[in-house]
Amino acid sequence: MTAPKSTEPCPVARTLDIVGDRWTILILRELLTNPSRRFQDLEASLRGISPNTLSARLKNLEEHTIVTRRLYEEHPPRAEYVLTPKGRELGPALQALLVWGRKHTG
Amino acid sequence: MTAPKSTEPCPVARTLDIVGDRWTILILRELLTNPSRRFQDLEASLRGISPNTLSARLKNLEEHTIVTRRLYEEHPPRAEYVLTPKGRELGPALQALLVWGRKHTG
Repeated sequence: MTAPKSTEPCPVARTLDIVGDRWTILILRELLTNPSRRFQDLEASLRGISPNTLSARLKNLEEHTIVTRRLYEEHPPRAEYVLTPKGRELGPALQALLVWGRKHTG
Repeated sequence: MTAPKSTEPCPVARTLDIVGDRWTILILRELLTNPSRRFQDLEASLRGISPNTLSARLKNLEEHTIVTRRLYEEHPPRAEYVLTPKGRELGPALQALLVWGRKHTG
């Protein structure tokens, strides 16, 4: 399953259209700083997110092949979320936004 | 004139709250790739932006001390917009978002 192509001509705007919303940024931060996270781990870390919103954001990230879901070897099997290589490549941009935000805002 | 402090706890989200909208990104791109731009230069480069929207986005960037307006030595005096040092420091983050967007989207 892949997301439709964007008609937005600016690559920065295209990137932020995919990953620029608040909850998505926070999900990516969790996955950049942990090797994997279960749904309930994310729900616990992201104070105030509803299960429906978390599920929708993860689905969007899966459709853009930024996040992948993998199953544990367990009975019953349980899912955990990990970044794909494409997702990991967002690290430097988010890090740069973080550095600027820490220095200049808040 | 300075903007009010944000209550948003995530520095990445705070940064994008200030500079994450589409037109603002495009204005910053123009100012990162040119030493200065007049209002009409920006209007011409940003196809489809209304003068009111451009004016509001520039005002927001001035309030956050990301952009400054300076006057030419001319009669009548005319204004041009330049990035402040704080504004220039957004360069690496926007560059990283651009690289990712070019590689992975569109």
